[in-house]
Amino acid sequence: MRIIVVGASGTIGRAVVQELGNKHEIIRACRNGLDVKVDMTSVESIKNMYEQVGKVDAVISTAGSAHYAPLTELTPELNEIGINYKLKGQMNLVLLGMDYVNDYGSFTLTTGILMDDPIPQGASAAMVNGGVKAFVKAAAIEMPRGIRINSVSPNLVQESLEKFGNMFPGFEAVPASRVALAYRKSVEGAQTGQNYEVY
Amino acid sequence: MRIIVVGASGTIGRAVVQELGNKHEIIRACRNGLDVKVDMTSVESIKNMYEQVGKVDAVISTAGSAHYAPLTELTPELNEIGINYKLKGQMNLVLLGMDYVNDYGSFTLTTGILMDDPIPQGASAAMVNGGVKAFVKAAAIEMPRGIRINSVSPNLVQESLEKFGNMFPGFEAVPASRVALAYRKSVEGAQTGQNYEVY
Ligand SMILES: NC(=O)c1ccc[n+]([C@@H]2O[C@H](COP(=O)([O-])OP(=O)(O)OC[C@H]3O[C@@H](n4cnc5c(N)ncnc54)[C@H](OP(=O)(O)O)[C@@H]3O)[C@@H](O)[C@H]2O)c1
Ligand SMILES: NC(=O)c1ccc[n+]([C@@H]2O[C@H](COP(=O)([O-])OP(=O)(O)OC[C@H]3O[C@@H](n4cnc5c(N)ncnc54)[C@H](OP(=O)(O)O)[C@@H]3O)[C@@H](O)[C@H]2O)c1
Repeated sequence: MRIIVVGASGTIGRAVVQELGNKHEIIRACRNGLDVKVDMTSVESIKNMYEQVGKVDAVISTAGSAHYAPLTELTPELNEIGINYKLKGQMNLVLLGMDYVNDYGSFTLTTGILMDDPIPQGASAAMVNGGVKAFVKAAAIEMPRGIRINSVSPNLVQESLEKFGNMFPGFEAVPASRVALAYRKSVEGAQTGQNYEVY
Repeated sequence: MRIIVVGASGTIGRAVVQELGNKHEIIRACRNGLDVKVDMTSVESIKNMYEQVGKVDAVISTAGSAHYAPLTELTPELNEIGINYKLKGQMNLVLLGMDYVNDYGSFTLTTGILMDDPIPQGASAAMVNGGVKAFVKAAAIEMPRGIRINSVSPNLVQESLEKFGNMFPGFEAVPASRVALAYRKSVEGAQTGQNYEVY
């Protein structure tokens, strides 16, 4: 299959490329390029990416984040960072990409454990995860031409322990390679509307 | 208690005012006033409302909606209608209202059954519901001064059957008065971080 991975240079993105790379043709996308440049926060940039890349069998997003702040310091403006990037960005990959995905192809987006198992400072991140999960479940029943859509909800990944570990006391971090399997299940499997929890 | 109901003139809002009105002082808010005017899509307007109203024991939102369209016709722009109104609007009532809620007070927001039981044309509505639900769950663990936060997830209400019934085949509509009980449970009870499903 021909697969775009948006966020391919990231911690999880690299693991997904490694998991899928020897069986499929991977087009690696992120703001700094690799194979194609895209800024998910811009509708124009997403359109340009799809025009450059053309038809694909699968679109994977392993990009997205939100602002972490104590709730009492979370302003409407800071809360919009995650809305514009992880929530709208991922949905727009779907809304603008549907015509570029071949029949029976798939979209796989990324959510995260914070919506199920919240931590201090994580309300904005939890919210975008919950929005993406509900979008995936609802969009699945309306996808045209047999196209499927799922999301993957990673626990904290071991490779990010140094960066984020302090914020996640007692979380049982999982290897990125284990998270990557869920993306393979989504792309090569037949399910739709699922949120694969890798907890 | 002194309670703001944003969306007080709506189908569910009226039932909530009726349920809580003879025991509490209700301040009815919506764009067209009643007791105070507010447009939830505007940060300035929310700030003005709280300045006018002053301290309260509870904030209830029974406002919010999203654009209904077939997924293949849902543009990024149409998808933003619900994000700006039901998702950001309700969260901003919390983020901007925290200082106006007395110790041990509460926020109660509104989600909806579409995130759990999707229908065609409902992806944007499902998404905003999922975002609000996850925000509530995560925000609950960080609320200052014992303030609680919950959401109510109504099924289709009987009073809206004429307006929306066609889109919800086989849904077992519930009376708005039954939905209103969940808002009372949230306000007068002691739970937090819950999404009360009235299905
Ligand atoms: N790491 C974890 O422990 C963990 C746990 C649960 C969930 N998640 C979720 O998994 C996803 C990936 O996390 P990660 O830790 O792998 O992230 P990461 O290492 O920070 O990588 C992010 C990737 O997205 C790209 N990117 C950033 N901004 C972008 C934009 N505006 N448009 C397009 N691409 C953009 C980055 O490359 P450029 O900077 O070049 O654009 C990079 O390839 C996120 O949604 C995250 O919330 C992660
Ligand atoms: N009705 C149902 O069957 C049903 C089922 C599940 C979930 N829900 C959810 O329950 C909530 C209420 O639904 P409903 O049917 O009662 O709605 P509704 O009858 O349309 O009432 C909406 C209320 O919100 C106010 N409003 C509209 N825009 C506003 C804004 N920008 N800022 C502040 N207030 C605004 C309206 O008054 P103004 O126009 O004067 O502002 C009105 O008071 C919504 O979130 C809806 O998604 C409803």
